[in-house]
Amino acid sequence: MSKPISHIGLEHLDDLALGSVFLATGGGGDPYVPKLITAEAIKRFGPVELLPPNEVDDDAFIATIGSVGAPTVSLELLPSVEEAARTLDAFEKFVGRKIDAVASFEIGGGNSVIPICAAAAKGVPVIDGDGMGRALPEAQMMSYPIGGVKPTPALAYDYAGNVSTFRTDTTETYERHIRAFSMAAGGMITAAEHPMTGRQLKDTVIPGTVSFSVALGRLLREKRGQADTLEAPLKALFGGSIYGDCQLIYMGKVTDKTTRIIGGFDVGEATIEDFNGQAEPLLVNIKNEYLLARQGERIRATVPDLITIVDYETGTPINAERLRYGQRVAVFATGCPEFYRSDAALKVVAPRVFGFDVDYVPLEEL
Amino acid sequence: MSKPISHIGLEHLDDLALGSVFLATGGGGDPYVPKLITAEAIKRFGPVELLPPNEVDDDAFIATIGSVGAPTVSLELLPSVEEAARTLDAFEKFVGRKIDAVASFEIGGGNSVIPICAAAAKGVPVIDGDGMGRALPEAQMMSYPIGGVKPTPALAYDYAGNVSTFRTDTTETYERHIRAFSMAAGGMITAAEHPMTGRQLKDTVIPGTVSFSVALGRLLREKRGQADTLEAPLKALFGGSIYGDCQLIYMGKVTDKTTRIIGGFDVGEATIEDFNGQAEPLLVNIKNEYLLARQGERIRATVPDLITIVDYETGTPINAERLRYGQRVAVFATGCPEFYRSDAALKVVAPRVFGFDVDYVPLEEL
Repeated sequence: MSKPISHIGLEHLDDLALGSVFLATGGGGDPYVPKLITAEAIKRFGPVELLPPNEVDDDAFIATIGSVGAPTVSLELLPSVEEAARTLDAFEKFVGRKIDAVASFEIGGGNSVIPICAAAAKGVPVIDGDGMGRALPEAQMMSYPIGGVKPTPALAYDYAGNVSTFRTDTTETYERHIRAFSMAAGGMITAAEHPMTGRQLKDTVIPGTVSFSVALGRLLREKRGQADTLEAPLKALFGGSIYGDCQLIYMGKVTDKTTRIIGGFDVGEATIEDFNGQAEPLLVNIKNEYLLARQGERIRATVPDLITIVDYETGTPINAERLRYGQRVAVFATGCPEFYRSDAALKVVAPRVFGFDVDYVPLEEL
Repeated sequence: MSKPISHIGLEHLDDLALGSVFLATGGGGDPYVPKLITAEAIKRFGPVELLPPNEVDDDAFIATIGSVGAPTVSLELLPSVEEAARTLDAFEKFVGRKIDAVASFEIGGGNSVIPICAAAAKGVPVIDGDGMGRALPEAQMMSYPIGGVKPTPALAYDYAGNVSTFRTDTTETYERHIRAFSMAAGGMITAAEHPMTGRQLKDTVIPGTVSFSVALGRLLREKRGQADTLEAPLKALFGGSIYGDCQLIYMGKVTDKTTRIIGGFDVGEATIEDFNGQAEPLLVNIKNEYLLARQGERIRATVPDLITIVDYETGTPINAERLRYGQRVAVFATGCPEFYRSDAALKVVAPRVFGFDVDYVPLEEL
């Protein structure tokens, strides 16, 4: 792997955004505008210290921050530097304590850069790690609550400056409440939640994913080209990481893609047909993220492993809300961090949780 | 009118609940359980001072309290003394100020007694008045916001002890947020909102409705009997009040009634057919409350005037969630307080606001 980075500066943002869309598996929201506002924040306040979890004080106070909503909405309801910073200001006032560092919900799309924007404006470090190692649609699917961190006190801030706070016991209940608020507030809000100590962070975070995402983005940029030429370098990069295997599982043309906003999520499916019409089409189920890929009865990859769709010609990963009919694409499947293969994690992220009638089988065993 | 009462004691609760179901025009939630818990609170803490609005200090701090949700849910998701009192405790902590008195959202069903329960537990007076003079389905339809009172800071408390707070500029936005929370929390929550000064209260409250509701309930109890025998005494009581006219507009059998919970409201309609099959059936549109009554093209009464359905044999008013096929009923129409006939009020409560293609014509002119 590449040499560690100690700060996130302007020079890292393009790679971070690009890598995080690969890890987002279709979800997380488009990072384009979040990247622009984060660049603006870094220009104004300077680079953001990237703090490895093992260097965090056990009694530090850490809040997680990100957008909650249907990714489709993020194309129209744009975030701002002020929204991220004001969310943290209001959160600190609400809990009566200053935060020492900021952590990500998920290293996915827009939500991989929003915490950096917030950290820049607040002058605090951002944790090199996240709560999913990818993107997943619901709050209780984060490693923090799976590891016992309580979701609240939490605070949400909408584009119009409306503020709501939440106190609830379980992340499942919190997810229901914050999702309802997000829908009522137009479909996308910024939330500060799952406050925790440094000790709790170390016990639950998926470590190193911010710097890994920068490295992954750099690879995608430097090796830009037909998707099949990317398989070997991606295999090498992921092979030396917490993710393990990465395989090119399909290449073809998007012949159908429909999603609707249901219950505050983008829900639907995509069909990809083999370029030569030889192989059976690949069907991909979507709930914000790409969750299940199969050819007929044959399962090719399932959540919590990562399914990523990239542009065939350039290898650029494509968010689900940007996937559409006629695109020529390649599909990669990547192993998930060990944490997500534990019983505790599979209880909230296995395919059956999403209503699919299949068990989770790790990518390497398929 | 009857002699003024200075306190609400156990002896007033049955009449208050009965009268308030008449004024609720079908909505407001069933008062049975709220009445029981309020009796419990009065037994424990003593009678509650009933404070006429004109005796409130201009700089007093007043909060409104009540249930928000679909009345149907109130039949299963029962309130408690603790919920009302804890809502106010949490609200005071949230705003950093003690309240001097409690006021009602609406003098309708359960929401006419919940504030008394809360006031008993907190040891503060309850205002003799409310924010609607009846029940209406949405927060921005209250006289307080119509008169300029801001909806927040507001706080909601659910049956499981989950707490959310709200800060927003307009009551329309607040209504969206609190409704979303109510739905996410099971369909019914307790809210403290529209905090105001004594001056603001005097300028916006519909006065005297708590004591009027007690008098109305007493009349319904004392004159209990066939609905047509009630018309004259009701006309006399309403004639001397802020409501004005009261007319018996229809008698018959409920031959159809359907409501569904849509967007957190009970929405639907009821058909009532003349006992003799002579007159055209009466169609009543429902959104929590009875909003529009018509025979074919002929409008018999519309919101904001009051439409009340009572049991034909006893004159007992029937909440919309209890109205069902086969009931023999009578329908009364009653004028609304002048406040609701102003342009500012009609902008948010006229029939067109609810999607009905008719203008508001006062009952007396129909």
